[in-house]
Amino acid sequence: MQEESSRRNIKLVIAYNGAAYHGWQRQIARGDSAWRVEGVDTIQGRIEDAAARVVGHPVIVQGAGRTDAGVHAAGQVANFHTTNLAIPMVGLRRAVNSRLPGDIAVLSAEEVSGDFHASRSAVGKTYRYRIHVAPTRPVMLHKQVYHYWRPLDVRRMSQAAARLTGTHDFRGFATSAEVREDTVRTIFRCEVGEDGDETDVSIQGSGFLYHMVRNIVGTLMEIGRGRWEPEQIDRILASRDRRDAGPTAPPDGLTLLCVHYDRQQAPGDRQQAIGNRQ
Amino acid sequence: MQEESSRRNIKLVIAYNGAAYHGWQRQIARGDSAWRVEGVDTIQGRIEDAAARVVGHPVIVQGAGRTDAGVHAAGQVANFHTTNLAIPMVGLRRAVNSRLPGDIAVLSAEEVSGDFHASRSAVGKTYRYRIHVAPTRPVMLHKQVYHYWRPLDVRRMSQAAARLTGTHDFRGFATSAEVREDTVRTIFRCEVGEDGDETDVSIQGSGFLYHMVRNIVGTLMEIGRGRWEPEQIDRILASRDRRDAGPTAPPDGLTLLCVHYDRQQAPGDRQQAIGNRQ
Repeated sequence: MQEESSRRNIKLVIAYNGAAYHGWQRQIARGDSAWRVEGVDTIQGRIEDAAARVVGHPVIVQGAGRTDAGVHAAGQVANFHTTNLAIPMVGLRRAVNSRLPGDIAVLSAEEVSGDFHASRSAVGKTYRYRIHVAPTRPVMLHKQVYHYWRPLDVRRMSQAAARLTGTHDFRGFATSAEVREDTVRTIFRCEVGEDGDETDVSIQGSGFLYHMVRNIVGTLMEIGRGRWEPEQIDRILASRDRRDAGPTAPPDGLTLLCVHYDRQQAPGDRQQAIGNRQ
Repeated sequence: MQEESSRRNIKLVIAYNGAAYHGWQRQIARGDSAWRVEGVDTIQGRIEDAAARVVGHPVIVQGAGRTDAGVHAAGQVANFHTTNLAIPMVGLRRAVNSRLPGDIAVLSAEEVSGDFHASRSAVGKTYRYRIHVAPTRPVMLHKQVYHYWRPLDVRRMSQAAARLTGTHDFRGFATSAEVREDTVRTIFRCEVGEDGDETDVSIQGSGFLYHMVRNIVGTLMEIGRGRWEPEQIDRILASRDRRDAGPTAPPDGLTLLCVHYDRQQAPGDRQQAIGNRQ
């Protein structure tokens, strides 16, 4: 109890444009104790630097999702512990933001129960993938969408997307999964929408394997442009063979929209969470 | 006539996200014959490189507006002459685009009459300035809008904007105008709109002095946040003193929307233009 009361657990909700960064995760040089590889700029590194300057000691910021280089977030969740009990929570968000560049923003900062862990406590995530379908590249959406020249059949893509929902072994959609790795995941929702020049894939699941969303999008696009039938999804789920799926869609179009937690573990309701632990 | 028929005048309409560039204009090193200062990346330089590779000889691409570093364009116009009569016009746009980065796009390429000059033939330009008014910075619009924390009174800004229309001496809105420079310009339209978190200033004029649009926006924002009354516009037009106007708004929010030409000089109607010359 003493340790609990001598440090605070801070939950952050974070948005970023990932175009200029080497992904979420701080890079650690091999055989080097330095936190950061020289010249490798990451979202985690930027937030740890900003938070450390605010609380006055080094911090480790754990993110819910380790987004790849070039991937964006509208609602990434992270948490860090601080022994600084003097910092008022009011104004913490603004204090951290004032130490971050314009393409990273802390949307909220709040104290949560000590057992909240942004990654381990998460029960699901929602991603969105934006495809811009037009003959001319959209310069103001450079590195924010995947620009695709050819038309896509959204109805076929939707039929294929529906086949992904449910609990399946998604090994065929993973890039380099370990042989012993548990590759069973549950997709709660996968929908394809169209609005003007933009075709969007929204996907909500219990968790995602390495490159899984981008491999799903790459597969849906092969179906959308007519190379495969929607039934190809069943084939990939059955064979569990990466070679049956489409190419990995580029990172530019991908955004981590939000991270889901159980109601009991809902951060921001510290009293309830502490009560549950007793 | 022989010279006319031995070269072609190509008009380009160009869009770009200026965030990564040092403006439109190719930088020329002082006392150096090199076209480009090492490491200074410009839109003009990129387009000249791409066009030269397509036509097979060096070209000079004249732009209608020399947008500053960080300023964007939705409809910049430029032209260049080529002695290569073998290149088919069909496919020229795509050929140039394939040699440009994803944040620059040629929207159209067409042959125009020999006397068309993107800058000298222009009779007006329209700019738009985007201000994002919200407590949290919009990470996906980083370097595409001016993020402003405090609320702006759009009605007051509109009243002020209306006072700018007409033919006036805009010296007070110019950054570093020469004493002998003609600083009289005509503003055909200046409107302030609001849509959700975004406040836009649209301004159409016969021409613009250095930093004129950004100084107008900076002044309108001082009026919008309540520092000045709309009548401050009249004071600046009368005093012609830069110190009476507001600060220069940052380049991020500014886009050159389109360039206007007289109907007689309308590019894309070469037959008519040649007919006019006879």
